[in-house]
Order: sequence, then structure tokens, then C-alpha cells
Amino acid sequence: MMSILNKLKSLDIRLPEAPDPLGSYVPCVRTGNLVFVSGMLPLKDGRLIHTGKVGSDVSIEDAQESCELATINALSVIRSCIGSLDDIERCIKINGFISSAEGFFEQPSVLNAASDLLFKIFGDKGKHSRAAVGVFCLPLNSPVEIDFVFEVK
Amino acid sequence: MMSILNKLKSLDIRLPEAPDPLGSYVPCVRTGNLVFVSGMLPLKDGRLIHTGKVGSDVSIEDAQESCELATINALSVIRSCIGSLDDIERCIKINGFISSAEGFFEQPSVLNAASDLLFKIFGDKGKHSRAAVGVFCLPLNSPVEIDFVFEVK
Amino acid sequence: MMSILNKLKSLDIRLPEAPDPLGSYVPCVRTGNLVFVSGMLPLKDGRLIHTGKVGSDVSIEDAQESCELATINALSVIRSCIGSLDDIERCIKINGFISSAEGFFEQPSVLNAASDLLFKIFGDKGKHSRAAVGVFCLPLNSPVEIDFVFEVK
Repeated sequence: MMSILNKLKSLDIRLPEAPDPLGSYVPCVRTGNLVFVSGMLPLKDGRLIHTGKVGSDVSIEDAQESCELATINALSVIRSCIGSLDDIERCIKINGFISSAEGFFEQPSVLNAASDLLFKIFGDKGKHSRAAVGVFCLPLNSPVEIDFVFEVK
Repeated sequence: MMSILNKLKSLDIRLPEAPDPLGSYVPCVRTGNLVFVSGMLPLKDGRLIHTGKVGSDVSIEDAQESCELATINALSVIRSCIGSLDDIERCIKINGFISSAEGFFEQPSVLNAASDLLFKIFGDKGKHSRAAVGVFCLPLNSPVEIDFVFEVK
Repeated sequence: MMSILNKLKSLDIRLPEAPDPLGSYVPCVRTGNLVFVSGMLPLKDGRLIHTGKVGSDVSIEDAQESCELATINALSVIRSCIGSLDDIERCIKINGFISSAEGFFEQPSVLNAASDLLFKIFGDKGKHSRAAVGVFCLPLNSPVEIDFVFEVK
């Protein structure tokens, strides 16, 4: 079986350095076989790749790209926490908070970008439960924030 | 002891087919003895029974009915995941996201409909922790979305 | 090692009676070694110490004070659930929902007050993962609501 790092290479995804948390907390905590990942933002080299509310300032496509980047940042964080992404048994749950303009109801389409990427990378182990919610505003004016629970070996 | 299915019958509740997820994810994931259920909407035969913000478009009573239906949909999902509702040990946590009009602060009253129903069905095993939050908008313009964590045998 | 109750005394923090839940649920549920605490509000003697949206009605400082009180209320709830705060192994995850005015993006600064307090009280065991989200409105017009997952002995 292909290692997850090789799988990421085949998808042309390079894991960044794990992003610094924005406050006095840690990006990732393990308890037993569960790993809880803090709310991830679409930060690249310390900056958000998009800002604003989805449905007005930010297009669905840009919000989807933001979800993919938040997911990649999460993988980077998990790798630094547990050592190897090959020790992931399953993605259990993701919560996608989508900063939403009035009348925007396509949060599931936006969050699908994260769900699809997890499935591409991990196959059946990437299939997760989730909640997609439209919120009023997010840290740094981010369009999306996603937190994760993984089961690991 | 009465089986949960008989209990549901005595409450005149019929479990629907487990609703299809709205995106590329699964309705329910088990890890160890915990089952995480995706955010459930008040869908009946594929349609929301109410739409809009609670406190303006949607009355508290209709929002409560929506919470009950989302809870029934969750039970349908869990049954299809673990086989029998009698294997539920405890409802651990529910998160209720209530699409809220400006100035609407009665999210707890709305979510009580879900909490009360869980208690009616499961007794002490139905007593859970929870968070009730007022959000800006939800998928498909749903008035409520609830996710769940259960402990199972 | 100093007991957590003595630590709290040294920080001049007195645990209140565990606050009553606002609905038909319980403040705290244990499953295995995990304890899930319901969304806590900044209630003191049954009243919110601040109300309104952060960034307009409520200052960052008052919102931070609210986060500290919600955290203290959570500790009170956990103590009544597991008996002794010395049995806490780790704070695993907190979700901070911040009722936010249009254009308010400093949810992390607000929630830092909870994160910092957990670190002050529990040291490394207080380091947690978290999500900070700006929501539209909260129960009773509270400026903040925080839920918690702890690992216990």
C-alpha cells in the first residue's frame, strides 16, 4: 500500500510546516486513540489565502480552495503530533464553520472540498461524519474554519 | 425492559429510512464505543419540514418540531450503523445549531425538544450534555441542525 | 504537588455551586475516561455578568472576563461530576462560541482568556485543542458560550 506521504505527492500536495496556533492553546491533543485537531484556517505562509463571507465576498470555488488548505494544514498538524500519517486509522468527525452571507445556504457544497480531499487521500479511512454550519464571522475574517477528530493507531 | 423500537411505537414514532447525507461524507462513524452522528436536518421524504430563521420566519413550536425530526433522523442513522438501538448505552453530547433571527435568544427552549425526546425514548440513558448556539444560516435554509455523540455497547 | 483546589485558592478563584442547566439536559457526562461538559455561560448567581455582542455591546475585556467565568463554571460542573479536580488528566478540547458584531474578528483573543486560565490552573495538563467561532447570538443574549472535553483518571 502506498504511504500517505507518497499519496500526497501523487496528488501534488506538499505539507507545510504545521501552522502556529493563534492563541494560548495547542494545535492537536491526543487522548487514547483519538486526536482532536484545533479549528484550522486556510493559512499559507502565515496569511489567509481568502478573506470575507462566502456568498458575497468569497466565491464557492475560493471557499472550497480554503477548505482544502485548512485540511492540508490539519494533516500537517497531525503529522507533527503523531509522527506518521500512516498511523491514522480513520477520520471520525469534522466540523466546518462557514462564514456566510445573508441567504447563503450552500455550506455543504463548500465543505465537500474538505470531505472529498480526505477521501482522495485516505480512501475509506477518510470517510467521516461531519457538521456544516453557516456562522456570522470567523477569526481574522477567514471564510472557513474546520476542526477534526481522527482515530489513530 | 421494553425494547427501544417498542418504546418508539408507544410514542407513535416511526423511524424513516436513514436520510442520505448532503455531501461526500457518511451519516455516522463508530470509533471504539463512541458513535459520532453527522449534523442532522429536519428532513422528511427528502424535504425540510420548515425553512428559515427561528424568531422571524419560523416559530419556536415549528423549530421544536424540527428538532424532534432531526433527532428521529439521527436514531434512524444510528440504527443503520450499529444494528439495534438497544445497544445504545448513553447519549453523550448533542450540539444544536439554531438559525436565529436578530435578537432571538431562546435557543435552549428550541433544543429542549430534542433533549426531551431523547429522555422520553431512552430514560436516564438519554440524559446528555449539550451546547445550544444561535447561528447565521444553515444548509438548505434549515432552521436547525443537530449533531450527536452516543456511547454504544 | 499542589492540589487543584489549593491552586484555585492561590489564584483567588472560588468555585461556585455548579450552575443549573437551562434545559432538559445535564451539565456533564462521562464516557470512559472522557468527560463532556455542556456549553457553559458566564452565569454568576444565576445571572449573566455581561450580555450582548462582542465588538459592539461588549468590550473584549468584558468578553474575556466572561470566558474566565464560563471556565470556572465548567470546573465546578466537572468537580460535581467526578468528585475531585485532581483526577483531571488533561483538557482535550474547548469550543468557544463568541456572539460577534459585524466585522469583529478577534474571537481568538477573547477565547485566550479561557485558554490562559486553564494553563494557569492545570499547567501542561491544561493545554488543549480548540475552535473559536463567531456566532450570531447565544442563549439569554450571552456574549460567549464554551463547551469542554476533559480526560480524567
